[in-house]
Amino acid sequence: MLSEDDLVAAIAAVAGGEGAGVTVGIGDDAAVLAGGIVASTDILVDGVHFDSGRISVRDIGHRAAAASLSDMAAMGAEPVCLLAAFGLPEGFGGVRELAAGMTEHGVPLAGGDLSRSGRLLVSVTAIGRAERPVLRSGGRPGDLLVVTGRLGGQAAGGYTARVTPRLAEGRALAAVATAMLDLSDGIATDAGRLAAASGTGAVVELERLPRAPGATVEQAAAGGEDYELLAAVPEAARLPVPATVVGRLTGDGEVLLLDGEGRPRSLRGWDHFA
Amino acid sequence: MLSEDDLVAAIAAVAGGEGAGVTVGIGDDAAVLAGGIVASTDILVDGVHFDSGRISVRDIGHRAAAASLSDMAAMGAEPVCLLAAFGLPEGFGGVRELAAGMTEHGVPLAGGDLSRSGRLLVSVTAIGRAERPVLRSGGRPGDLLVVTGRLGGQAAGGYTARVTPRLAEGRALAAVATAMLDLSDGIATDAGRLAAASGTGAVVELERLPRAPGATVEQAAAGGEDYELLAAVPEAARLPVPATVVGRLTGDGEVLLLDGEGRPRSLRGWDHFA
Repeated sequence: MLSEDDLVAAIAAVAGGEGAGVTVGIGDDAAVLAGGIVASTDILVDGVHFDSGRISVRDIGHRAAAASLSDMAAMGAEPVCLLAAFGLPEGFGGVRELAAGMTEHGVPLAGGDLSRSGRLLVSVTAIGRAERPVLRSGGRPGDLLVVTGRLGGQAAGGYTARVTPRLAEGRALAAVATAMLDLSDGIATDAGRLAAASGTGAVVELERLPRAPGATVEQAAAGGEDYELLAAVPEAARLPVPATVVGRLTGDGEVLLLDGEGRPRSLRGWDHFA
Repeated sequence: MLSEDDLVAAIAAVAGGEGAGVTVGIGDDAAVLAGGIVASTDILVDGVHFDSGRISVRDIGHRAAAASLSDMAAMGAEPVCLLAAFGLPEGFGGVRELAAGMTEHGVPLAGGDLSRSGRLLVSVTAIGRAERPVLRSGGRPGDLLVVTGRLGGQAAGGYTARVTPRLAEGRALAAVATAMLDLSDGIATDAGRLAAASGTGAVVELERLPRAPGATVEQAAAGGEDYELLAAVPEAARLPVPATVVGRLTGDGEVLLLDGEGRPRSLRGWDHFA
């Protein structure tokens, strides 16, 4: 089975690449267009990303918007608006609640489309502006890896709690970060993505991961859906917001997760296609 | 059952409206953001907007991109990029073909996301720029209604042919049009939308509709999916591109479709929720 990263690579191969009005295309948290415009699309499907039997329709809207706004945070961007596409099962009556949940982040919903579909699904595009968009690819060997907030809370809580995209933190970190992304699939996967994009290796010390209440080390490392930020920052940089140092980028190509005794551990992140 | 327009109105009611960076929000062909940025999202679902048993995967990608690019055309905008979200059934192997079909319009695919889903579906966001975006709401009583191309071809052909978004025509018409939209649901529905947004009535003369080869008057008026442009232009304006005068905006609130003898006819457009 192809992984999600494999599929994205397959799309990128035919996508038409950068140039003209597109500064950064597929592969980062968001596309960067001429003039500092940043844009990102996410899709959330019932039974894959949420369970409509366990969270409210309003919370589904809130979560769907959070996923795209978190991409804005990861670029250090200020969101301007959201656009939404809804797939609605026969007889679904909650479209207003969905939209209301989306707008609770304070970013206006400026457009949308809807269709009947088998399962409930929401695709959200966020558009924002960034003076200096932070890519995944700028990390250098020796940079510290830092994370905002606490990890594993979603996994520990059964993925039912609301998440808050780290927009203010992302804009602040953009002043010092060499690379940044949001932790959608767990640091075990996402640190590898940042390192691969930057052409570096990475070491993450599992014991240093700031754990949410009730979360195990495994949930903090591989639980996914936390939407905290992972940034690479030069060792000499002063962190502009509270963040926890969890490792560093290295000069070889390896990505290592080290336990408390310094032994490598293997942990897979959350891959919707695995 | 709620119509698609009713559902869009329900969303618009909670969408957070205009202001800040959003000049025009939900209800037009695309949102207009500060700085002349124009953005629109469409969703196409297998069994609703296309039949994956009858058209190729590449053509599905082509059609999905055409729908969003047609919204750019309707605003008089130049597209900069596309973002796509794919919902893929178990075992679907055509994601590269889907993406390849999308990029055949010459607009790069700058971002995307994908998920498993029950049915194949594609949500496409187009982002563009327009110096003077043409809204649906600027029409005035007395303006002529004109359409590009020929209508009813998709309905007559079973919705299997490729469509070409009228990007060059849209940018040219933007110099004279007071209002514009793209004919996604058929002029019987879409002329009413333009008139409602402009606060006018409209008269469409069915015998004047330019019909595609093999299309009936009913297919030309209500078949949908043609993606030709409908523009309101002042009577004195010189048309910058070939287009057919099919009626005019009026001072009362009524929308009339007149047959060859000047008798009103009722024809419903294509409503995916009706």
